[in-house]
Amino acid sequence: MKRYKDLSPPPRTIMTPGPVEVDPRVLRAMSMPILGQFDPAFTDIMNETMEMLRELYMTTNQWAFPVDGTSRSGLEAVMVSLIEPGDKVLVPIYGRFGHLLTEIAERCGAEVETIETEWGTVFDPEVVKQAIVQYQPTIVAMVHGETSTGCMQPLSEIGHFCREHDVLFVVDAVATIGGVPFYTDEWKVDAVMGGTQKCLSVPSGMAPITYNDRVERKILGRKSIERGLRTANDLPLAGMSGHNRIASNYFDLAQLQDYWSPKRLNHHTEATTMLYGLREGLRILLEEGLEARFARHAENGAAIVAGIRGMGLELFGDDSARLPVVTCIQIPAGVDGESVRSMLLHDFGIEIASSFGPLQGKIWRIGSMGYSSSRKNVLHVLGALEAVLIHHGVKLPAGQGVQAALGVYAGQKEVTYQ
Amino acid sequence: MKRYKDLSPPPRTIMTPGPVEVDPRVLRAMSMPILGQFDPAFTDIMNETMEMLRELYMTTNQWAFPVDGTSRSGLEAVMVSLIEPGDKVLVPIYGRFGHLLTEIAERCGAEVETIETEWGTVFDPEVVKQAIVQYQPTIVAMVHGETSTGCMQPLSEIGHFCREHDVLFVVDAVATIGGVPFYTDEWKVDAVMGGTQKCLSVPSGMAPITYNDRVERKILGRKSIERGLRTANDLPLAGMSGHNRIASNYFDLAQLQDYWSPKRLNHHTEATTMLYGLREGLRILLEEGLEARFARHAENGAAIVAGIRGMGLELFGDDSARLPVVTCIQIPAGVDGESVRSMLLHDFGIEIASSFGPLQGKIWRIGSMGYSSSRKNVLHVLGALEAVLIHHGVKLPAGQGVQAALGVYAGQKEVTYQ
Repeated sequence: MKRYKDLSPPPRTIMTPGPVEVDPRVLRAMSMPILGQFDPAFTDIMNETMEMLRELYMTTNQWAFPVDGTSRSGLEAVMVSLIEPGDKVLVPIYGRFGHLLTEIAERCGAEVETIETEWGTVFDPEVVKQAIVQYQPTIVAMVHGETSTGCMQPLSEIGHFCREHDVLFVVDAVATIGGVPFYTDEWKVDAVMGGTQKCLSVPSGMAPITYNDRVERKILGRKSIERGLRTANDLPLAGMSGHNRIASNYFDLAQLQDYWSPKRLNHHTEATTMLYGLREGLRILLEEGLEARFARHAENGAAIVAGIRGMGLELFGDDSARLPVVTCIQIPAGVDGESVRSMLLHDFGIEIASSFGPLQGKIWRIGSMGYSSSRKNVLHVLGALEAVLIHHGVKLPAGQGVQAALGVYAGQKEVTYQ
Repeated sequence: MKRYKDLSPPPRTIMTPGPVEVDPRVLRAMSMPILGQFDPAFTDIMNETMEMLRELYMTTNQWAFPVDGTSRSGLEAVMVSLIEPGDKVLVPIYGRFGHLLTEIAERCGAEVETIETEWGTVFDPEVVKQAIVQYQPTIVAMVHGETSTGCMQPLSEIGHFCREHDVLFVVDAVATIGGVPFYTDEWKVDAVMGGTQKCLSVPSGMAPITYNDRVERKILGRKSIERGLRTANDLPLAGMSGHNRIASNYFDLAQLQDYWSPKRLNHHTEATTMLYGLREGLRILLEEGLEARFARHAENGAAIVAGIRGMGLELFGDDSARLPVVTCIQIPAGVDGESVRSMLLHDFGIEIASSFGPLQGKIWRIGSMGYSSSRKNVLHVLGALEAVLIHHGVKLPAGQGVQAALGVYAGQKEVTYQ
């Protein structure tokens, strides 16, 4: 028999747009013995996690809980539970993940209308408002922070417009939640889908979501009780076999919220260890404080921008729309981007990312999220990138990248996050 | 701000049909620093996990990988990827999880035919074969081990019959995999869906599956490349917008297998820490050896059966169909089953389970799975159950339950597992 070795992951400085490094406190929480899913000690942990998620999302919503799957499981859970075949969904696209929302909505049977803007820019809210008037969608779905392009879409104006026109506004905040302010209630966002492996710095595998009573009403209209759990008291329910029944059992939010409610109606078996990790990640976040955390992410993002410019490289994307937690860099002409990434990984133990689709091979992406968003990491990646570029024959002003970043930390430039 | 305490789960002896106790080696692996998803050190871990899953499933299938979600995510991934709307699916039901397969197949748009047998029994293979001839399904989906009733369905004869009639045979082995033999290739099972939190003793949150080239052919006929990842070289593909496109992005096995192949085409971000846990759980399993592991589960199951009978209680279900890893016990007349479970938990730190639907309040279920399947745990739960029952006024022959179990361990009764 082949012998498999002890797990022994090499030490890495992970500066991608996720997954990022995990706080050792979270890893320690994940090594605790597990509990049964209906053990009161465990359901307490479920309830505490819901409370903390409400603080993270700055919402009074009753429902705020994780879907058990990676980030896109949260996107799909919200969309498949909301969208009835034939529903009109508008998706404004400004990068890869807008295309993902489109694809998921299509698979849910929606009639999808898209508007697109060039990768590296975001939408003027007026354009989205006009499209809402023109297409009269039931749902508008869009991305808050596009990791594929390093851009962030302002949401408040669109959210208010949707609410006034009784349109449901559904937002993918996977890249931003926990690193950038997200005012769910104030911005009038009806459902928000987050991820764990980015600014929350918890390993991939859970998708915390929140939604309000407008969303809940629509979902409850499509509810059914699972076969094999029904008792004589459960009458057949509306939607049991009609075309408006939710097309997924796993992602049926009507059933998931029963499981997360005091009823505890059995659905899946909650992913114990992942929940331990999420709870600890949220606890760390609330101890640091949301304001302090956003300021830290803004400062480290600004230091990377200054450092990249300091070494004479070009950034990709519109300056005014920059996502503070992902910095996109044009790969200089004549340089093999993958060779640079490979040398960073093998010689310096640093991982940065490439990009997708039309940007593949054209940009690098440096993430600065969660536990990875630290002064130490920023200075390390800038110094290493400079060394690797010089090794690849790029002429640049040696030393100036790191100095520019140090300048940001010394307060030579004002950094704000709102 | 409310202060949330350090995570500190109370110590429990978990004797339910899952989730069960986790080997400390698995918990330790889950506390290791994470890696990026395309880091070669991580893709090696992915490949090793696939190799070990093939040994677990006793198969030469190319595809054997986890879906990132709890056990039922694997059921849904296989079914939504396979079933085209209108496909005829036969589900023989002998407990709750047969109903779940039915419900998932319905939501996938299948025309579902069911046959049912009384809870506590399994099917005579002849009955299933006749139903196949009668209904001419494309797919037969059934459960190997029903935790809801403690029964196990023999599969070999049905598998061979399906293969001869070119029907796809899809099996839910969530409860059995790693505790009871499962001969995927020998039994002619086309797709198998397992879980982590039962006999593998890894926390809930991953669903290892395997499927053969018969399944793959059907799935590839429905393949599409994700929007936002397509490059100029990707031609529009068959099925892009037709009704036969896979209805889920998250569970699209055509995309998942690209991610698990050397192509590494980006889909989700693999759940790093859960994969560390699964790899370690599989490593422990292969070190113990499949034969030794099955023998251990059979012996502990037999000791529980002997112990329960020794204290004069009645078992639920057909003796010849007993699932060795879940023992179902009739709650004695006049005893409040929930009061007994509650006292076991609070005074003895032991968790056993109740059941669902028609069996709710009528039976208890004692699991003996994975790391929880130990002599120490079996003797502890039998002794504690006796004490709690006496406390509840049940008249029983004190001491005899534990003695009967000790008799099994002393080899007074021959235990086999095949």
